[in-house]
Amino acid sequence: MIAPARNRVVLAHGGGGQLMDELLDSVVRPQLSNPWLDARGDSALLDWGDTRLAFTTDSFVVQPLSFPGGDIGRLAVCGTVNDLAVAGARAEALSLALVVEEGLEMEVVRETLASVAETAREAGVPVVTGDTKVVGRGQADRLYINTTGVGRIPAGRELATSHIRPGDRVLVSGTVADHGLAVMLQREGGFGMESRLESDVAPLNGMIAELLDGLGDQVVFMRDPTRGGLAGVVSDLASESGLRLTLEEVDIPIRPETLYAAEVLGLDPLDVANEGKVAVVVRPDATTRALELLRGHPLGREAAEIGAFGSETDGLCELVTDVGGRRILQKPYGEELPRIC
Amino acid sequence: MIAPARNRVVLAHGGGGQLMDELLDSVVRPQLSNPWLDARGDSALLDWGDTRLAFTTDSFVVQPLSFPGGDIGRLAVCGTVNDLAVAGARAEALSLALVVEEGLEMEVVRETLASVAETAREAGVPVVTGDTKVVGRGQADRLYINTTGVGRIPAGRELATSHIRPGDRVLVSGTVADHGLAVMLQREGGFGMESRLESDVAPLNGMIAELLDGLGDQVVFMRDPTRGGLAGVVSDLASESGLRLTLEEVDIPIRPETLYAAEVLGLDPLDVANEGKVAVVVRPDATTRALELLRGHPLGREAAEIGAFGSETDGLCELVTDVGGRRILQKPYGEELPRIC
Repeated sequence: MIAPARNRVVLAHGGGGQLMDELLDSVVRPQLSNPWLDARGDSALLDWGDTRLAFTTDSFVVQPLSFPGGDIGRLAVCGTVNDLAVAGARAEALSLALVVEEGLEMEVVRETLASVAETAREAGVPVVTGDTKVVGRGQADRLYINTTGVGRIPAGRELATSHIRPGDRVLVSGTVADHGLAVMLQREGGFGMESRLESDVAPLNGMIAELLDGLGDQVVFMRDPTRGGLAGVVSDLASESGLRLTLEEVDIPIRPETLYAAEVLGLDPLDVANEGKVAVVVRPDATTRALELLRGHPLGREAAEIGAFGSETDGLCELVTDVGGRRILQKPYGEELPRIC
Repeated sequence: MIAPARNRVVLAHGGGGQLMDELLDSVVRPQLSNPWLDARGDSALLDWGDTRLAFTTDSFVVQPLSFPGGDIGRLAVCGTVNDLAVAGARAEALSLALVVEEGLEMEVVRETLASVAETAREAGVPVVTGDTKVVGRGQADRLYINTTGVGRIPAGRELATSHIRPGDRVLVSGTVADHGLAVMLQREGGFGMESRLESDVAPLNGMIAELLDGLGDQVVFMRDPTRGGLAGVVSDLASESGLRLTLEEVDIPIRPETLYAAEVLGLDPLDVANEGKVAVVVRPDATTRALELLRGHPLGREAAEIGAFGSETDGLCELVTDVGGRRILQKPYGEELPRIC
């Protein structure tokens, strides 16, 4: 890929990959540096006396607004609920801010809010405050949504990549790449495949609560592989822990139709966003129980152990391919699929 | 004004006026109704054991991105800090979410973040978490920002329009309409007036903390007159309290150049947004001390008493004009000035 000019923002700056890290490191963090932002979690953790607050924000610009398996309303609720859940927080409340393009059909607003409401009920998290702005025609693409969430973290719970030790296992709660490819196929007319591919968008807070209740501090860390895909998460896990992480490609769950769609589009499915999956790091002894707990929940039936941390301290993530080759998994550079979330 | 078709969103739906209330009441609240949202405050209040959390969100779509007296970065910090402050909360932390149009100059991103950082320092409120999305050319107008804020409310503090009693006074912390007219003049080329008009955008949390520390429960209610202007706030105060509110036009502080600009543009300055002013309801005995406290702060030097609640229970706001006439102040219908915040 040709490096973009650095004096303008390009689509890939929003892709959750290396170029986005560069934007954050060169432009955002030098200005706004503080202990919470520098912690680089998807949620900030605030200690207020006895209350530990998790706080996270996400804007959603998915195009088209609805797609097989979901829509922007469901996505906006799940994205933020899931960011709180993987921080170990109980999601308590959401804000909802709409930026609407003038002329949008009121019926679309109504349907989107119905989806927000239904998903919020499913997750058990109320939308407690909101904002609406309208911009002129051609100043937005129909509808953008920001959701911001607050949650509470029980005393003593501390999930951090710095706690990862050699031997710890990495699990994923189900098949990867379904969301990004479902949206992309819907947008591109489907190549005849769209009917079989569905986004996985779902609120994970219930499943994650069961996992944490069952395993306690045997759960070391969690992250949801959204923008940047599973590759983005596992490469961060390796670099942040400083340990070698080895994954077995054959163990990574993926639907045949998703794999086929990725091949047709020339994409690595490990780079593609998920919206209803979580990657979990657990202590080795807890692996079996963790898989049982995940598989016991409707959203985790296809959970799998996909790799383990070694004692090498190179901070790299190595993928053992299904034919036995080895390659280093890198965080995607930019994003091949803009506006999928 | 001709009523807009109800099947599409129009600019005025985002104006903070009657049409926006209609959108919220007919489309948003029926779906999302819950005690927090139904309380209709700019901030939701959440009780978590000993912690009382205030939580508020706002998106900013101002055009142009910078204007005399401020820019979108300063506006995004102040708007949310002020919504927390008027709820009686100590603003603790902000989230910051950018939606960037592809091709935006990186220098604009840098300058905006520098302004966010400077204003956050001025307000003493850190930006602790964030998000960046990039959309294609023509899918946004350069840059939109959402900020969401969390704050803590001291035990026992309860500001509510339901506490308003006959005799209570209404104060405003300074001149009205400066923000909306400064932005509008900048956008329209100024009519030769732009150099004298500046936005009032400022973080009010410091001034409001001094007021609350000094007066305690003598402060009954506060709101910042942003979209919908002072007219929007005072008409809400009257209707929510159920009492007649009488304002004296001659007492409402306004700069001559602002008044002139409003006349040239054919606008009522009471309908125009402010971004560094607060309207305060106080018990009658506290009026003098409240004015002293406000005027003792750099942002409140021109604070004034502008009216009082009577015992009539018609819930109307009456303005006694400077020539002694009387008219009912109504919440603006839509918005004459789109995209000023």
